[in-house]
Amino acid sequence: MNPSDSMPPAGTLKEKERIDDLGINGYRIIQKTDGFCFGMDAVFLSSFAAVKEGERVMDFGTGTGIIPILLAAKTKGSYFAGLEIQAEMAEMAQRSVKLNGLNEKVHIFAQDIREAGKRFAAASFDVVTANPPYMKGSHGLENPHQMKAVSRHEILCTMEDVAREAGRLLKPKGRLYLVHRPRRMVELLAVLTKYRLEPKRIRFVHSYADKEANLVLIEAAKDGGAMVKIEAPIVVYEEQGKYSAEFCRVYGYQKGEEN
Amino acid sequence: MNPSDSMPPAGTLKEKERIDDLGINGYRIIQKTDGFCFGMDAVFLSSFAAVKEGERVMDFGTGTGIIPILLAAKTKGSYFAGLEIQAEMAEMAQRSVKLNGLNEKVHIFAQDIREAGKRFAAASFDVVTANPPYMKGSHGLENPHQMKAVSRHEILCTMEDVAREAGRLLKPKGRLYLVHRPRRMVELLAVLTKYRLEPKRIRFVHSYADKEANLVLIEAAKDGGAMVKIEAPIVVYEEQGKYSAEFCRVYGYQKGEEN
Repeated sequence: MNPSDSMPPAGTLKEKERIDDLGINGYRIIQKTDGFCFGMDAVFLSSFAAVKEGERVMDFGTGTGIIPILLAAKTKGSYFAGLEIQAEMAEMAQRSVKLNGLNEKVHIFAQDIREAGKRFAAASFDVVTANPPYMKGSHGLENPHQMKAVSRHEILCTMEDVAREAGRLLKPKGRLYLVHRPRRMVELLAVLTKYRLEPKRIRFVHSYADKEANLVLIEAAKDGGAMVKIEAPIVVYEEQGKYSAEFCRVYGYQKGEEN
Repeated sequence: MNPSDSMPPAGTLKEKERIDDLGINGYRIIQKTDGFCFGMDAVFLSSFAAVKEGERVMDFGTGTGIIPILLAAKTKGSYFAGLEIQAEMAEMAQRSVKLNGLNEKVHIFAQDIREAGKRFAAASFDVVTANPPYMKGSHGLENPHQMKAVSRHEILCTMEDVAREAGRLLKPKGRLYLVHRPRRMVELLAVLTKYRLEPKRIRFVHSYADKEANLVLIEAAKDGGAMVKIEAPIVVYEEQGKYSAEFCRVYGYQKGEEN
């Protein structure tokens, strides 16, 4: 993403923050210059999540607010909430919402996702999205050594939290959309089914057609049937330095463009 | 596969049987003219199964004996057993073994896989392969209506049997190789982990690059760690009527050849 050239209103940015153009609807996002920036995973997730007209969407661990802002641009959902445990980050996300004139549609809450079921009514959302926080900042690249360092316990806790709270917030047949590392997929699927979130669509992202998957996108339906569809893979690069047509379609830019 | 032109020894074939060339090592296989013939799934499985030199291999529900015969051709395994519950089919598979001069290496047993743990010593095999019987004859094509007709109960029973008996027969870190429909994959993975068979490699087969997966290949290790690798997908057709290079490599024939 290139920094946008147009001037934001005074007071929009704090120290060590920058504004990046999202390349859709003219929307922009505020990010830390010295912190994690949103990565491919967020963009893939916002394309994978099939939000229908009028639906209510909840994003767990929203960070910069990238997912609700992208979904507000790409879909006809009526209401987008984002929970972020870090107050400072939530405040920054709120400024991005304001910057894009989305105050009516997108709402950021400084809130621990583990308390989501207490803060929001049961069965009050059609869609929940989650890009678990331990993945952020790695920009879709797989690092097995790093993965090994993340304890099994930690990952499962996060996944349990996401699945349990999503299960509470979702209406019957409501959908949870996740982006995750494939390496823990077996445990992830088990956690989802434990909370009656039945995986319905799975899509893998591979950097090249002949390489293992770097990311997995999962749609799970609350109390859905036990049939899953493994969709066509997303291959990012057709060859070195050349994005595939499918990647450009999913990622939302014109083939060949690499901003 | 084209029927082989060379004459088999007298008595090799019974009524309503034919001999097909396997296109490797000059091996051939006897199949029923009016029954199910082995399909792509068996060939994919035999390529996916990484049998090392000297290893002992068990095939559950071997049918025509296609898997142990292909593995005897493709690998340096020392001993290949095949269990087949239908006595007539087991006898036919035995004739295929003899036809290929494999009597020393490949052994067919008319045996219910559900009794495998009683017939064979615990932890006596390095590898178990299985191409669950309800899939056979469908030649790798997906039919959702047919799949729906197969009751959940039936499929789970078969998978439970395979996982339980494989768990008994496999040495520690021994590997189970399965080919399956992707649609039931979530339950399949759950059944495997239930029997301490940890999925380690998963590979999907897609007819075309932009179509959902038709088959899934799974390697699970007895008491293995909880990390799984989603390998590069196998795409069968590059375009209508033209096999992909990867398919030809996996399937074991020269690109362009379509016998």
